[in-house]
Amino acid sequence: MTARTPARKLRLNAFLMGVGHHEAAWRHPRTEPARVTDVRHYQHLARTAERGKLDSVFLADGLALHGNVRHNALAGLEPLTLLSALAAVTERIGLIATASTTYNEPFHLARAFASLDHISGGRAGWNIVTSAGEAEAHNFGRERPAHADRYARAAEFVEVATALWDSWEDDAILADRRAGEYADTGKIHALDHAGAHFRVRGPLTTSRPPQGHPVLVQAGSSEDGKEFAARFAEAVFTAQQTLAEGRAFYADIKGRLARYGRHADELLVLPGISPIIGSTEREALRLEKELEDLIVPAYGVQQLSNLLGVDLTGHPLDAPLPDVPQATEGQQSRLKLVTDLARRERLTLRELIGRLAGGRGHRVVTGTPEQIADRIEEWFTGGAADGFNVMPPLLPSGLEDFVDHVVPVLQARGLFRTEYEGRTLRENYGLVRPASRHARRTAAAS
Amino acid sequence: MTARTPARKLRLNAFLMGVGHHEAAWRHPRTEPARVTDVRHYQHLARTAERGKLDSVFLADGLALHGNVRHNALAGLEPLTLLSALAAVTERIGLIATASTTYNEPFHLARAFASLDHISGGRAGWNIVTSAGEAEAHNFGRERPAHADRYARAAEFVEVATALWDSWEDDAILADRRAGEYADTGKIHALDHAGAHFRVRGPLTTSRPPQGHPVLVQAGSSEDGKEFAARFAEAVFTAQQTLAEGRAFYADIKGRLARYGRHADELLVLPGISPIIGSTEREALRLEKELEDLIVPAYGVQQLSNLLGVDLTGHPLDAPLPDVPQATEGQQSRLKLVTDLARRERLTLRELIGRLAGGRGHRVVTGTPEQIADRIEEWFTGGAADGFNVMPPLLPSGLEDFVDHVVPVLQARGLFRTEYEGRTLRENYGLVRPASRHARRTAAAS
Repeated sequence: MTARTPARKLRLNAFLMGVGHHEAAWRHPRTEPARVTDVRHYQHLARTAERGKLDSVFLADGLALHGNVRHNALAGLEPLTLLSALAAVTERIGLIATASTTYNEPFHLARAFASLDHISGGRAGWNIVTSAGEAEAHNFGRERPAHADRYARAAEFVEVATALWDSWEDDAILADRRAGEYADTGKIHALDHAGAHFRVRGPLTTSRPPQGHPVLVQAGSSEDGKEFAARFAEAVFTAQQTLAEGRAFYADIKGRLARYGRHADELLVLPGISPIIGSTEREALRLEKELEDLIVPAYGVQQLSNLLGVDLTGHPLDAPLPDVPQATEGQQSRLKLVTDLARRERLTLRELIGRLAGGRGHRVVTGTPEQIADRIEEWFTGGAADGFNVMPPLLPSGLEDFVDHVVPVLQARGLFRTEYEGRTLRENYGLVRPASRHARRTAAAS
Repeated sequence: MTARTPARKLRLNAFLMGVGHHEAAWRHPRTEPARVTDVRHYQHLARTAERGKLDSVFLADGLALHGNVRHNALAGLEPLTLLSALAAVTERIGLIATASTTYNEPFHLARAFASLDHISGGRAGWNIVTSAGEAEAHNFGRERPAHADRYARAAEFVEVATALWDSWEDDAILADRRAGEYADTGKIHALDHAGAHFRVRGPLTTSRPPQGHPVLVQAGSSEDGKEFAARFAEAVFTAQQTLAEGRAFYADIKGRLARYGRHADELLVLPGISPIIGSTEREALRLEKELEDLIVPAYGVQQLSNLLGVDLTGHPLDAPLPDVPQATEGQQSRLKLVTDLARRERLTLRELIGRLAGGRGHRVVTGTPEQIADRIEEWFTGGAADGFNVMPPLLPSGLEDFVDHVVPVLQARGLFRTEYEGRTLRENYGLVRPASRHARRTAAAS
């Protein structure tokens, strides 16, 4: 027998979105649309994901009513309050919330994530977004910010937030009752940060989070977004349609880490996958067809119009997608993905809408549990993924099917854990707990 | 037998604060100071208050490390995330969080409170504060705002927040699967608010909260604060030392309601009370003495210096409080309360620190459960209170004692409920659910 290195394991995140990722999910008989604002629905989802030993659950967010609520069940809850209610009914699973750096203050957000990390015993993660949309700007008395400005603000925001998390050293609390000394104030530090976007004195009002810093996640795929990820992110959610694209993105982002003094293991690449699962391939295809038949074309046209910045209302559904302006680097990378897809496969407007309805540009994989597992294994072993952002088309049923039928296949193949490695999200993601910058300074000086 | 009108009932709120309201609580053997960041501690407190049929629990908040953390267990959690975790383990009790209008955006806060209201099934309340302190300003790149400006911003903030809660009418969601119509967009309204402090387009991303509006609470006792309360608040927390003061405040605030077209029943006055409970009076006095002996004088001196705006460091503890500048109307009303107390009773600095250590200016009542209940009844029937903001000196033990020993006395006297009247905080507080401004408009037009 030869010595074996521990097998590399998949990381799996469950992306929770209302009653499912398919835009017609709310019309399908296996969902209950009233549950989009029902905390018990999300608690059931989090518990189901934890039963499957998934690493984390994730909530997206937007600060305006995107899309057309006339035809989709968009009436969700605020992610941080919701995750806190999920923390209360789970023990091990990570809890990742989206929050914007463009319309928040670092003190508020650092404090809320520190609280979530305390409340969950070290299971918080922050998906950092920069809020591109005009509708969001108008809810905060602002105009749409320039792309580069958003990322400059985001970088300074993250620097301030991490400094606030470090503002209490891990051993700042003495709780010495006899001497009447609760904290060693020499280990609680002001920041006196004064930058281009923020002036923050600090310290935080909350002691250092259990994970040191909640896990930093990012999902932008523009040039600025990838550079931001390489500098700060510990996990990246990304939409990649083909294995070749997935490999190219993976190599690209991992290749950027060295210039920030980081190792490839310090960032997990998690492409999105929307698995349409059947006990037979035929059953899976039937479910896919059922969902396709429930699409409201007017909704798809509006979503696509918003994304492309071109009003497609009245354009014939069975004609090819008309020419739209080329995506520039500063624009949303999702726009490029969509126009590339339409051109490559010469899709009609209706076909394109159908392709996007499943995962908004994320990869949809339809088949048996074994077939889904094959596609996961192919990307994982083929240099395109460290794991996946799982986007079930229907919730809860799609997540239950994934946990009950796909996870056991992945476990049998030795690709996925059968028990949690640790108690914190960092431990399960295999990420190091960052030392406080003040502790590092002390260590360096001694 | 004569017909009886339903007896007026006390409202009781449990003010949860770390391991107790007494500043030396963390040094007392009946507390565990490590629990100030332990969610299970607060979950136990909320469940205990619910077991006692209390109306609500309440979390204060500050956006800077107030006071001297060297000598007190100040390292708490962010209220909205914490209350959400309490919602998950309770069924009936109201959940009130403090949040500042000075350093927040109405869209964020309206959304978070709407979420908490959905998550808790209609149990959210918002204690509106305006953040007077300089330390808070410096965590948000700002200078201390003028008193009047704070209240002007607060008024506009509340107007925007309530408009956002109304932006979805109660019946906006159709969820008509067959027709593919999820929402009636004619019942989801933009605000297009453009005021002196905020421009907010709306609508909110979340459907109307179960309570219509979460309950609005306020605690300022300045002239501006009382006027603000009369206009917006549905419950007021207040610090009143004597029955005469309590009566005067009660009459004053209730008398202001009419000019806003409101009835006296639409606002509950809840003075603070810190009950030091013993099974005998002697035992209660012994506990009071134990706590007094654990006070760290340096902490009290600093707290008082911060409050009075005068550095008292080095001032002899056993000399009278020196002359301090008279409180002006624009200043914190707590300052006036403290200087009045010191002058009225000719207190030394040490005595004043002792008097404030129990409840930071709130009334401390020491005695048996019957004696505590007597004081509560006296104020409740004597025109000084609709109920109380209960501030146990030690947590959890002081709350357990209140629930197990004082509540039964109040129930036996017919002053307090033996079962919840309803499921929402509004129902238990006896407050009407506000109709949406859009529904009212429709009704008026028809």
